[in-house]
Amino acid sequence: MIADVYIELKEGVADPEGESTKKALKLLGFDNVKNVSTRKVFRIEIDAKSREEAEKEIKQMCEKLLANPVIQRYSINWIS
Amino acid sequence: MIADVYIELKEGVADPEGESTKKALKLLGFDNVKNVSTRKVFRIEIDAKSREEAEKEIKQMCEKLLANPVIQRYSINWIS
Repeated sequence: MIADVYIELKEGVADPEGESTKKALKLLGFDNVKNVSTRKVFRIEIDAKSREEAEKEIKQMCEKLLANPVIQRYSINWIS
Repeated sequence: MIADVYIELKEGVADPEGESTKKALKLLGFDNVKNVSTRKVFRIEIDAKSREEAEKEIKQMCEKLLANPVIQRYSINWIS
């Protein structure tokens, strides 16, 4: 099974990478850009008997390693 | 208009971040993980008269700043 795990900043947390990207785009002349935010995707291929079991395991991965629960939230999108 | 721009490595390009994440997950006991790859998402809010115009502009952003065409490819997914 393959899942895309999206890691994004929680509301109200500063996104310096997004801000810098926005500034750089403006400097390049892209004046129509209103906002830029960033997120990270981990595509994880996992062996499991069921989707429920795999999802439980991926949630544990997020909580233990992939996301920082203080400032980030995660969501899981199944690809196959 | 809001678009998610996905930046991912081209086929055959090493993904050290994905490899390290996989190793770390295995060390934490997630033995069912078969593979991990990473990608980046820029969520861009843009003012434009039409989606075609906005898409043209976002492609230019990717080519000039967001993606490295030697090792990365990009795709655009419209959110609104």
